[in-house]
Order: sequence, then structure tokens, then C-alpha cells
Amino acid sequence: MQAFISKIRVGYSDTDQMGFVHHSNYLKYYEAARWNLFRHRGIPYKEIEDGGVLLPVVGVRMQYLKPAFYDEELTIETTVVSMKGAKLMLSYKTFNETKELINTATVTLAFVNSRTRKPCKPLAYVVERLNKSVKGVEMI
Amino acid sequence: MQAFISKIRVGYSDTDQMGFVHHSNYLKYYEAARWNLFRHRGIPYKEIEDGGVLLPVVGVRMQYLKPAFYDEELTIETTVVSMKGAKLMLSYKTFNETKELINTATVTLAFVNSRTRKPCKPLAYVVERLNKSVKGVEMI
Amino acid sequence: MQAFISKIRVGYSDTDQMGFVHHSNYLKYYEAARWNLFRHRGIPYKEIEDGGVLLPVVGVRMQYLKPAFYDEELTIETTVVSMKGAKLMLSYKTFNETKELINTATVTLAFVNSRTRKPCKPLAYVVERLNKSVKGVEMI
Amino acid sequence: MQAFISKIRVGYSDTDQMGFVHHSNYLKYYEAARWNLFRHRGIPYKEIEDGGVLLPVVGVRMQYLKPAFYDEELTIETTVVSMKGAKLMLSYKTFNETKELINTATVTLAFVNSRTRKPCKPLAYVVERLNKSVKGVEMI
Repeated sequence: MQAFISKIRVGYSDTDQMGFVHHSNYLKYYEAARWNLFRHRGIPYKEIEDGGVLLPVVGVRMQYLKPAFYDEELTIETTVVSMKGAKLMLSYKTFNETKELINTATVTLAFVNSRTRKPCKPLAYVVERLNKSVKGVEMI
Repeated sequence: MQAFISKIRVGYSDTDQMGFVHHSNYLKYYEAARWNLFRHRGIPYKEIEDGGVLLPVVGVRMQYLKPAFYDEELTIETTVVSMKGAKLMLSYKTFNETKELINTATVTLAFVNSRTRKPCKPLAYVVERLNKSVKGVEMI
Repeated sequence: MQAFISKIRVGYSDTDQMGFVHHSNYLKYYEAARWNLFRHRGIPYKEIEDGGVLLPVVGVRMQYLKPAFYDEELTIETTVVSMKGAKLMLSYKTFNETKELINTATVTLAFVNSRTRKPCKPLAYVVERLNKSVKGVEMI
Repeated sequence: MQAFISKIRVGYSDTDQMGFVHHSNYLKYYEAARWNLFRHRGIPYKEIEDGGVLLPVVGVRMQYLKPAFYDEELTIETTVVSMKGAKLMLSYKTFNETKELINTATVTLAFVNSRTRKPCKPLAYVVERLNKSVKGVEMI
């Protein structure tokens, strides 16, 4: 199980008047990081949506350990934790430029039919390509 | 020609590390203000979209006179300036709690068919209800 | 222990191309809801910051049960769960216009000295006024 | 006068339910593009702020010619148009992946003393390094 690395440059509009990255932005960074991973595996998220399947977020756990600041280049490690039924769980670690761990999270997504908006079986080719990066995948 | 008044409370996430409202947020405030006006005229924007017509922004001019701060209640005056062909132009003035004029803008929207994505004739009932608030509307 | 009610109107810019409220926006809604509660208790967050104390988010748990849509008026119930040391935990429930529970969350904040950026003792008057709304507060 | 090129990948959270990039996001893209240019010239914006000078936006003109979509890599050309007194004007052109011009803008910034919040003379080293990229700079 290997983590996939994304680099994110903190934008000025990501900060708030504390001078920190606003806490809501990590969810945007993690979204960008997972679609980077998907693109790297040859399954651009755009193609999944064009194929009639959505992957909305259904659960989040996040710990903020240290603040991030404007213009820092953050390193985000994304790991596929599990696939069970319609659900896909990813975990994240964010490091700042001095290699400090500043944020950790798990994000759970659900495969959803874009027409019926009901949970659906993951697309076989998505599962296959994600499997490469998952240790001990559980499929029901 | 009467201005329509909206009140907007500045959110914490609207600020940046200067301690000011980030300049991109005025476009969100003005968007909220115009759909408030539309709702007040009995033409909720949601109904317009459900009817197959979109109203994307095609032009913006904005002047930032003074900064706005967290937790201020801003007063936004929205005025329908003109309707010409597929285009609708609105003007905005934002005042802070001490009645200072802090931002002015004009925003131009276009009526667009949501299927073809081509400019289209404004819906008659929208024009009629907006006309009430426009002096000297020009319709081609 | 009574929940504090906030109403939030979903903005157009809050949606994404799924047609749902983007999942990051609930953190902004919950931020607005807690400062509404604080303002209602006579402790505007602005005053707390002006007094040299910040309240950054240090932990989040969120479950997305159903999507929210453009222009819906959401009802957010905010409850103070506990105060322990420098930490304040709040829980949230979001209901849509048909009274369906669509999102639940707990958000943990820390009292931080804005100069040293270290955790600090909560301000006495903040504790006192929040206590009114807390059952079984634990203070170390 | 040479344009400086930035590449921006459209994030999922940048879209709205029209399926287009929300119009407010171009201001964030242009902000990122100008600080890219500044960094490239050896004058990171962070250093300017740390030196006690802010560069808030004071004016915007923007034309939206075509929509941008999720996951497109946009090419942004940034050009320094003029420096006059405390004001710096930049112009922008955004192209999509098929080289279509989709957005144009001019953005005016003001050099402001961060303590007094009054307009101030531009820092000499900033002017010098920006001059390299400006044809016919006018300095009062």
C-alpha cells in the first residue's frame, strides 16, 4: 500500500484573517489530490461522471495539527484504504515545507448512479485500477 | 428606478490574511443579491433554470473603494440598468455599517438556452416582472 | 441542553456540477452557525479575537446523508457538547426544507492565544455565557 | 512586453450547477497567476507583505467569452500594463485546452502601507524587477 503524492500551493484566497488556511479548504485540497491519483491510474474522474456515475463524499474525519500558511507548498499523501460495496475510503496526510505533519483525514465516497441518485456497484475498470494501490481490498 | 436592498453578513471564511473580505467574494454577494431581487419579483432563478434557461455572467466592472471586514452587515443596492437582446445589466452599490460606499459594480448577464448553450430571447414573464423595476427598458 | 437554530440559504456558488452543495461548504455553514450562537449569547466572535484569543478548528467529523440544493433554506441546529481544557466541542444537525436530516457533524475548536499561538485557558466570560447552553460542562 | 504564462487546473469545487467554472473563480486564478509572475521575478508576494506593504485589488474589468469546465488545464497570460503612482495594472487572457480565448480581464492593484492602510510609494526593488516586463512604464 503506497501513498500517492500531490503538491498543492496555498493560494492567497485560501487564507482567513487568522493568517491560516481556512479549515474548509483541506476538503478541496483532498478532492484535488484524489482526482490526481485517479488520473495517474488512468481513470480521470471526468470520465467516470461522463459514464453516469458520481462519487460524492459521504463521510469525513479530519484532525488539524498545525496551521498552513499562504504560499506554502503542501505535500499530500493519499492512500486508498478500502472498497466495500458502494463505498471507497481514502486517507490523507498533509505535510508542510519543513516536513511537519499538519493535517490528517479519512474521506469516504460512495459510487452513485447519476440518473437514479442511488448507490451503485463500482465500475469494474475503476476497481481494477484502484486495486493496484490497495492492500487487502475487500469487495462484497 | 428603485434600488432593491439586500443585507449580507460577512462570514469568517470570506476574509483573507489582510483581514479584509477577499475581493472575489463581492461577485458571490452580488449573485445572492440579484436572486433575492428576482425572488422578490416572483421569478425565483431556480424556476428560470428549471425552465431551460441559464443566466451566466458575461461581463463585470468593479471598483473597490474601502475594505469590508468580518461580521459586518453589508447593505447592497441592486438596480436593473437595462435589458437589450439577450443581455441583462445590473448595477450594485455596497455600503458598510457606517453607511460608507465601499464597492460599486455593474454585472452583465446573458439569457442562454441550457440545451444549446446559445444566447436566447428572455422569457416574457421574466421581462415583464423585471420591467417594473426598470426605467427606460430597451428591448430589441 | 437546547439546540440553537440558524437558517442558511444555499447560494448558487455553493453548488458544484453534480448539482449538489459542494461538501466543503458545510464547514462554512457550521462556522456561521456557531458565531450566530455566540452572538446570541452576547459574545461576538469578533470581540474574542479582538481580545487576543483565536478559536481555530482542530477536529471535524461529518456525515453526509442527503444532498442539499441551490436556493434551499437549510435549518442548522447547533449544540454545545463539552468544554474541556482549551477545547470546545459543538455538534450540528442540518435539515432541509422538507425536514429531512441531511448532514450531521461534530466540530472541535481550541482556545489559542493569538500572540503565542499556544492553547490557552478559555476566557471566563465566554465560558460563563456558553455554560447556559451546556449540560454537564466539564472544566479542568 | 511579454506575457507571463501560468497553467491552472480547474478543480471540481470551482464548478457550479451549470457545469461551468463559477464566474468568481477567475479572480482567484488571476491572483495566483500574478503571484506566480512576481515569484518568477524574484519578488514573492509574501516578502512584500512581510515588508509591511499590501497589494489589494482596487478595480476589475472582466469579459466572459466562453465557459471553462472541470479538469481543463487553463493557460493564463499575465501582462504588466502600467505602474502609476501607487497603482499597478495587469491584464489577463485565459485560453482553454483547444486554444480558445475564454476570458479577458484587467485588474488594478494599489500599494498600501499595512500599518496605516494608506496608499504608498511602490517598493523600489519591486518596481525595478517588474519594469523588466513592462513596455513604457509610467512612474509619477
